[in-house]
Amino acid sequence: MSQEATGVQQRLAYEEPQALPLVVGVDLGGTQIRTAVLRGAELLSRIAWLTDEYPGPERTIPRIYEGIVQALDEARITLHDVAGIGIGAPGPLNGRTGVIFDPPNLHGWRNVPLRALLEEHFSMVKQHMIPVFVENDANAAALGEYMFGAGRGYRELVYLTISTGIGGGIIVDGKIVQGTSGTAGELGHMTIDWHGERCICGNIGCLEYLASGTAIARRANQAIAAGQGSELLTFAHSLQQQTGGQNVHVSAGTVAEAAQAGISLAEKIIAEAAEAIGVGLVNIAHIFNPEVIILGGGVTLIGSLLMEPALRIFHERTMQMPRNAARIVLAQLGTDVGLVGAGALVYCNLL
Amino acid sequence: MSQEATGVQQRLAYEEPQALPLVVGVDLGGTQIRTAVLRGAELLSRIAWLTDEYPGPERTIPRIYEGIVQALDEARITLHDVAGIGIGAPGPLNGRTGVIFDPPNLHGWRNVPLRALLEEHFSMVKQHMIPVFVENDANAAALGEYMFGAGRGYRELVYLTISTGIGGGIIVDGKIVQGTSGTAGELGHMTIDWHGERCICGNIGCLEYLASGTAIARRANQAIAAGQGSELLTFAHSLQQQTGGQNVHVSAGTVAEAAQAGISLAEKIIAEAAEAIGVGLVNIAHIFNPEVIILGGGVTLIGSLLMEPALRIFHERTMQMPRNAARIVLAQLGTDVGLVGAGALVYCNLL
Repeated sequence: MSQEATGVQQRLAYEEPQALPLVVGVDLGGTQIRTAVLRGAELLSRIAWLTDEYPGPERTIPRIYEGIVQALDEARITLHDVAGIGIGAPGPLNGRTGVIFDPPNLHGWRNVPLRALLEEHFSMVKQHMIPVFVENDANAAALGEYMFGAGRGYRELVYLTISTGIGGGIIVDGKIVQGTSGTAGELGHMTIDWHGERCICGNIGCLEYLASGTAIARRANQAIAAGQGSELLTFAHSLQQQTGGQNVHVSAGTVAEAAQAGISLAEKIIAEAAEAIGVGLVNIAHIFNPEVIILGGGVTLIGSLLMEPALRIFHERTMQMPRNAARIVLAQLGTDVGLVGAGALVYCNLL
Repeated sequence: MSQEATGVQQRLAYEEPQALPLVVGVDLGGTQIRTAVLRGAELLSRIAWLTDEYPGPERTIPRIYEGIVQALDEARITLHDVAGIGIGAPGPLNGRTGVIFDPPNLHGWRNVPLRALLEEHFSMVKQHMIPVFVENDANAAALGEYMFGAGRGYRELVYLTISTGIGGGIIVDGKIVQGTSGTAGELGHMTIDWHGERCICGNIGCLEYLASGTAIARRANQAIAAGQGSELLTFAHSLQQQTGGQNVHVSAGTVAEAAQAGISLAEKIIAEAAEAIGVGLVNIAHIFNPEVIILGGGVTLIGSLLMEPALRIFHERTMQMPRNAARIVLAQLGTDVGLVGAGALVYCNLL
């Protein structure tokens, strides 16, 4: 009962946005740096720069500084008006120390003490000690949904994001599960097919290998290369003629559209991804017994063709207690989840 | 750093056994009720009764009362001399409320408020309000190893027990992960073989279905029934002639002995169980990034024939950061883990 009371208190605090201080959120991705000034889930300004022109930390980090300054300028405030800076970044990284190790999605980065660099920079340049918090992007997104999205009011939450890859963020008793070196929550890299094929991570039969957007596109293009995809290929060409494209590489989005149009190969590929997601949900429920599992990421936009079979497997296979306990819902923060989650890092560390 | 300091402080507290109060631990199993008076991992008395004569809570619960009184008598102390009573019981149960739901291993039990019953009983009969704590047996065992066994000094720990079934206990930042209805940590019921066979829990391709003692025996007896096990059957008969037995049902222990003796079917069965355990270890490391994974239960007694291939898979397939972080060690408390873990419930709730 005391836990429920705590949940309600927190929800009330978050739902009085005027009571929240301003923060800066930075969503550091493989292709974009997005920066915003936020109050809760409300964006007061928003800056986006491409990063692929600036490979390596020595050129990207000055862009992070500039993005923060520009986002503050656009919101017509100064660094003194914000409570802190939160940064969501690709893992592996250590959320306790703010050191980014060697993420496959950040070329040239290796053991970069991003938190210390930002704190030092603003201390020197602006004569202001601003607290900085760094967390991996899936954990930050989980925190954003927990505080301001589909997870409000719950204390035991698992966030699963299914897009190019599959990532996870786990919240137990209101706190992110970081693990001892900050890499906990790699739910996309649990084996569900122990005699399956090798994932880019080195493991075998990972959920990500079977159900990510990359997996859906790979399976379609493999079938086409094997001469089994003429109907799908014709469909893809028809889409690309409409938009003037020449590329015959089929994307996950095209497979989804083809499945909606009733093309059987595409239906089969989406059904297999759905099955893998359903198995992932069973495992999450058995391991964590959460109150809520939040599904985010572009692949969830496929909708009922994907979600209905996944939920059917979840309901068929999960043990009664964790099945009855777990609500499965879609994420609410959409493409802003990275920014809101980055800002939430400041709230959860300072409030 | 502060976490390390906390770990060291805790370890010092536990390692001064004279500083610990006396507690009662009850290990409530499907076939035995074991009861002890403990100081830390030290047993001052020990009582064991078979439960299979007393099916149903109406006959078992009075036996729990009597066991506690007898264990106190044998230790020559009274209820007033102990800080509390801890009970490890088969799940599903709710560790927060102390209500036992309907465990498959406790026939006739359904929504029994064991904690409240014991507190009321001793309050009435002994005029003494003694605090009682109930937790599922795998979580209690994890806590026992965390406080007094192989987990001392660590804060992020996963305990995996491999015996008749496979259970788990997860400790994050020094606390048991209970889940919202108390059923978290069902690591034996994560799917690793998504197109595999159905487990007794209703799920498909569970780790328990592939690597438990039951699984090892089932595979051997299936092979024998299919006429593929003549060498193994001869070996089993030779063992049983020595001990005078007539049963041709091959146990997991016999399969292990046959594998040690070089019988190829048995070697193959143990190797497959080892592979499944290795895959389970990879998943645990990716999901929790723990400091230590502790392996307990009778199946681990098979030794290097099982552990070496499992560890090889773990080292081959786990991502670098969680692989380097995780020590994999054997449990230290042996068959007393249930009693020590039950007692640890009192320490972790009262200290």
